[in-house]
Amino acid sequence: MRIAVLGVGLIGGSVALAARERLGAEVLGWDPDPKALTAATGCGAIDRPMTSPREAGDCELLLVAGPVATLATGVQEALAVAGPGAVVTDVGSTKAALVEATTDPRFIGGHPVAGAETSGVAHARADLFAGATWYLTPRPDTDGELYERLHRFVAGLGAVPTAIEHHEHDRVLAAVSHLPHVLANVLVAQAHAALGGEAMPATGGSFRDATRVAGANPGLWAQIYAENAAALGTQLDQVIATLEDVRGRLGELEAWQGRAAQQRRALLEAETQGGPLAELRVFVPNRPGIVADLALALGRAGINIFDMSLAPTQDNRHGTVVLWVAAGEAARAGALVAEKGLSVT
Amino acid sequence: MRIAVLGVGLIGGSVALAARERLGAEVLGWDPDPKALTAATGCGAIDRPMTSPREAGDCELLLVAGPVATLATGVQEALAVAGPGAVVTDVGSTKAALVEATTDPRFIGGHPVAGAETSGVAHARADLFAGATWYLTPRPDTDGELYERLHRFVAGLGAVPTAIEHHEHDRVLAAVSHLPHVLANVLVAQAHAALGGEAMPATGGSFRDATRVAGANPGLWAQIYAENAAALGTQLDQVIATLEDVRGRLGELEAWQGRAAQQRRALLEAETQGGPLAELRVFVPNRPGIVADLALALGRAGINIFDMSLAPTQDNRHGTVVLWVAAGEAARAGALVAEKGLSVT
Repeated sequence: MRIAVLGVGLIGGSVALAARERLGAEVLGWDPDPKALTAATGCGAIDRPMTSPREAGDCELLLVAGPVATLATGVQEALAVAGPGAVVTDVGSTKAALVEATTDPRFIGGHPVAGAETSGVAHARADLFAGATWYLTPRPDTDGELYERLHRFVAGLGAVPTAIEHHEHDRVLAAVSHLPHVLANVLVAQAHAALGGEAMPATGGSFRDATRVAGANPGLWAQIYAENAAALGTQLDQVIATLEDVRGRLGELEAWQGRAAQQRRALLEAETQGGPLAELRVFVPNRPGIVADLALALGRAGINIFDMSLAPTQDNRHGTVVLWVAAGEAARAGALVAEKGLSVT
Repeated sequence: MRIAVLGVGLIGGSVALAARERLGAEVLGWDPDPKALTAATGCGAIDRPMTSPREAGDCELLLVAGPVATLATGVQEALAVAGPGAVVTDVGSTKAALVEATTDPRFIGGHPVAGAETSGVAHARADLFAGATWYLTPRPDTDGELYERLHRFVAGLGAVPTAIEHHEHDRVLAAVSHLPHVLANVLVAQAHAALGGEAMPATGGSFRDATRVAGANPGLWAQIYAENAAALGTQLDQVIATLEDVRGRLGELEAWQGRAAQQRRALLEAETQGGPLAELRVFVPNRPGIVADLALALGRAGINIFDMSLAPTQDNRHGTVVLWVAAGEAARAGALVAEKGLSVT
């Protein structure tokens, strides 16, 4: 199989690596930035650099990668050079505008939900997509053979191809990804204003956790907000309506608070797929090695830590380690922690 | 020094333990729940249980602990029995309503910013307040001698006493604690609605982190929202205004996104107090022991992990471990991780 990767940064480079290593594909690469192309060639991500996308005419699959705002042009260029039996896809994190604008039946939109935190082919990895959801947005006129080829390709990279209607995709991503980024920014701005530049009081790790993604990669995220303005706008309308409702009944929110606990459990139990998780909170001295000590004790017992959060106290001498383990393992894990003389709940 | 702790749950019990262990105080205890009082006596948190707060008449300091909605009554009871030279304080996480309603100059409001995740004297610890901000809300008519006694007491428990005007307290806590809880609930509700009960797609750990506090302890948090309705309402007004502004310019948010990054850095660099932190992202196989292995390697080199987050991929076979270490240690930590053959950025 011969494929072309047009845009060899983190995502394109990882696709190229995975296609070579896992599928034995021959990978031609191109990038608008000559330095990126040289780097991709140098690190062995691609078999051969192209001087222009036009050299991709005999590839079975052309994948366009790059910042969201560049994809419409990139896909048009790819379609212009692709053969009649080729499939063209992209990796953008918004889909509706691109899919609506691209009527060529050889194009099928795609979105691997993976790794937007770093960039550049230097961070590319063949296993970036292992187990990741990779959305595909076929339309009613999509050729079945091309869709099957793309599905097989994506699965071959280790990802989980998941078909979704393109507006539905943008609606879901607005809710589970783009909105959290907007609200993290808002939280940071409000705290900054309320404190007038003073130090945060010790609020445990919850503020840190809640704002983890605030301000992430401004160039990239501004494009995502812009491209998904319709769906994100609808989400914001709903948030505003909810906040106005909540604001009007701040004295009677117990049921609302309880519902959020149930909803979160349902969302994240589904996410882990291996059944419900239990949360262990361990109060520890904040010294090098303590986390290792805990993790080792659980590891030795074959108990996997699905998620972990460490919040230091203000003096950095103590902290709370929160560990999420399979609910069925919680009692055993708790006993192991307690054996170390640590307080666990 | 003889003190009375009125309400011996997690916070009151921890104050009692710390006062006995660190200050050598004699601690009388009382609780509206006889079982809680028996437990506090049984675990040695208090020297002596009282059958009524009335027995606290000869104590120098009376501390009222319990759910926020019970504190006004508790403080009035304490003031009714306290001697003329005694100081009465509380531990509520909202302050304005209580401080405004309590004109007795022997009362000084307090709020240790610590441990709302668990409850009950069984989880009490003498070091719960180590390094924690403990807000005190003196008024212009507060007796200097009583304030000095309370300040010394709080510092003696290991906390950092921090004077703040009571409305200012509620404004700050609304921004840095209560609002994040509300927005976490909103995020969960929106994702739940958008997905219609389906499994979350793999979005890394960011959604999990952002919603960590969603639905926390509904009984307790509903009271906090209600008690701090004024300040929280103002915060919500500001959020609504910001979201309406953002909604109107979804195509031009790059500068806004960049500002959030700066603001978060400023807030959290100040929080750690030990200088700026650096973030290392490590892609790892998700097997028991891998986190331990990493933490041990850093621990052996004397590099402390200030914060940590582990996000599994959808298949739970891989994950990204994010580690925060002192910026000055980042290069050394990165080299240690890379030596293990792991990809780090």
